[in-house]
Amino acid sequence: MRNIRVNLAEKSYDILLESGILNSEAGMEAIAPFSRKGEKLAVVSDRNVRDIYGEAFIDRLRAAVPGEVFSVAIRPGEESKNLDTLSRIFDAFAEAELGRRGLVIALGGGVAGDIAGFAAACWMRGVRHIQIPTSLLAMVDSSVGGKTAVDIPAGKNLVGAFHQPSLVLVDPKLTATLPAREFASGMGEIIKYGTALSEALFRRIGTEVPGAFSPALESMIAECICLKRDVVEEDEFESGRRKLLNFGHSFGHAIEVKTGFSAYSHGAAVAAGMRIAARFGERAGVTEAGTAGRVEKLLAKYNLNIEEETKGLAEYMKRDKKAAAGGVSLVLLKRIGEAVIVEMGFSEIEKNLASLDTGSGR
Amino acid sequence: MRNIRVNLAEKSYDILLESGILNSEAGMEAIAPFSRKGEKLAVVSDRNVRDIYGEAFIDRLRAAVPGEVFSVAIRPGEESKNLDTLSRIFDAFAEAELGRRGLVIALGGGVAGDIAGFAAACWMRGVRHIQIPTSLLAMVDSSVGGKTAVDIPAGKNLVGAFHQPSLVLVDPKLTATLPAREFASGMGEIIKYGTALSEALFRRIGTEVPGAFSPALESMIAECICLKRDVVEEDEFESGRRKLLNFGHSFGHAIEVKTGFSAYSHGAAVAAGMRIAARFGERAGVTEAGTAGRVEKLLAKYNLNIEEETKGLAEYMKRDKKAAAGGVSLVLLKRIGEAVIVEMGFSEIEKNLASLDTGSGR
Repeated sequence: MRNIRVNLAEKSYDILLESGILNSEAGMEAIAPFSRKGEKLAVVSDRNVRDIYGEAFIDRLRAAVPGEVFSVAIRPGEESKNLDTLSRIFDAFAEAELGRRGLVIALGGGVAGDIAGFAAACWMRGVRHIQIPTSLLAMVDSSVGGKTAVDIPAGKNLVGAFHQPSLVLVDPKLTATLPAREFASGMGEIIKYGTALSEALFRRIGTEVPGAFSPALESMIAECICLKRDVVEEDEFESGRRKLLNFGHSFGHAIEVKTGFSAYSHGAAVAAGMRIAARFGERAGVTEAGTAGRVEKLLAKYNLNIEEETKGLAEYMKRDKKAAAGGVSLVLLKRIGEAVIVEMGFSEIEKNLASLDTGSGR
Repeated sequence: MRNIRVNLAEKSYDILLESGILNSEAGMEAIAPFSRKGEKLAVVSDRNVRDIYGEAFIDRLRAAVPGEVFSVAIRPGEESKNLDTLSRIFDAFAEAELGRRGLVIALGGGVAGDIAGFAAACWMRGVRHIQIPTSLLAMVDSSVGGKTAVDIPAGKNLVGAFHQPSLVLVDPKLTATLPAREFASGMGEIIKYGTALSEALFRRIGTEVPGAFSPALESMIAECICLKRDVVEEDEFESGRRKLLNFGHSFGHAIEVKTGFSAYSHGAAVAAGMRIAARFGERAGVTEAGTAGRVEKLLAKYNLNIEEETKGLAEYMKRDKKAAAGGVSLVLLKRIGEAVIVEMGFSEIEKNLASLDTGSGR
């Protein structure tokens, strides 16, 4: 079992990574100390996850922890990550009499993790929670680092909190049952880590194409988590270096909004965003020549070399929550494995995007 | 002008106290540095406050700060402190394009302060906010210390965050227009500070009965804020000493729930709770003999010596969010000015309460 420690003073925690940990003795032993006798433990998951893993997990949990376990199931899908669902989770917490010393376990993909984490952040001004991601994307991304949120009609993740988990259990075995689209989505984020933060990882992803539930995938997941851990330890509240984790997202998020969040999985949108960011960076003179070609070649290996029209993207970027008046912090590449933050005005962004669209950028 | 500094490392802030500061140059000068050019500033208040103070304040603000000011008005009253109102505040923030570097000003009583503070805590995972309390209760209590919350059907303040303000402006002149019930409510909290934390203040409240907008009141407000500041600096997240500020609330909150929050103002319920706590403490052998008599005498000076039946109160205390399985942390007095936390099981609480109800406790 790998134990990746996140050092954040009194908010420090362990990320335990092992295939099969979800239903293992080791997993239960790791959870048990966070549950207290006489106190409640809420397992929040979406109905799909509950149907596949939830009931067996809850049965094992009931036998293993001192607290009293109850379950809250939400509707699957991003469209349920909103204030209404949050309100129903709070009602369920109240009805079960979850107290200040209680515990929340988020079992599921990014949606369950984000909303259950936010519910834990707000319930009685903060109770402890454990993240158990079931999607590859959530394993390498949202389950680590304490970002929690819900969507509102005006935009995704506009309402949320930084609330670090007390423990994260990562079970790569769960990737075996993921649909291809979801697996590719997670690979998109893994490629992001290599491209933005580690040339060594970038090279590995290019040579050892991992299948679901393979040792190669397990070690890549561990590497991504370590990269994220290092960044979060340095900049918990995303005032500086943590922004680098948004590589591919400046353009990728605009693509998601433009296409109504349905055309692409999140990871695919990030992949399309990375492709634009690399070419954009070369055009802007920030990125080493030849980098975009390498990024596209790697993306193609995972069927993620998605060419999305850049026309109109700047309009969507202006509305992003990270935008300031007149411009935005773009995450671009200096070279593979080294992302940088570049403040750029929208007129320059529009100019660079336009030049890509004519094809003259290739 | 009094400047009371709250030292909480990078979350430190100033509380500026002066009669007339709301519409003074000094007030505007204090706010201006927190507003940025090209960024938005939201003034959140209830409609009553907006009608009385809000428009003039906003006009002055527009002339004084670099940012762009917009206003969000909520329905007055505790019943609007809920997730629905919060959702509408978020929609207003989105529509006005309030960004991460924007600012929220909570102008109003406890309801506006709590909900606007919580909205600021969650908006884009946290934007800065300024508290400007307009009720005496909010001046000495909720505007200082960073507790924010909304109510849900199951209970008050069950959903919230610790989110320290960046600045607090306290204008005792505003107490001049408070209805008698609200003034008495604030006095209830002021008496709480003296009774639980400072015998010197307790004596002063007994000898210099202050009128609204008097120098005596202004200095009592300052003293309460300093007492609270000292407690919050020591225990920001209420894991220990900060619980002492809940003196009178264990019983008082149960009285509020029992009477449907309509019979008493918050301060009056706390007063009734303090009266019970003092007699209960004597009965339990925790409180110096004669203390309850002194508390009742002081409360009577402010028409707050309210005798509330203790029967059934324990049932309501069991449902309190502060309750653990089997018991609760009660805040009782050792003597005037010295509160202590006593863990007590519900059976003992019931026994002590029952003995008070027979009148044999006097």
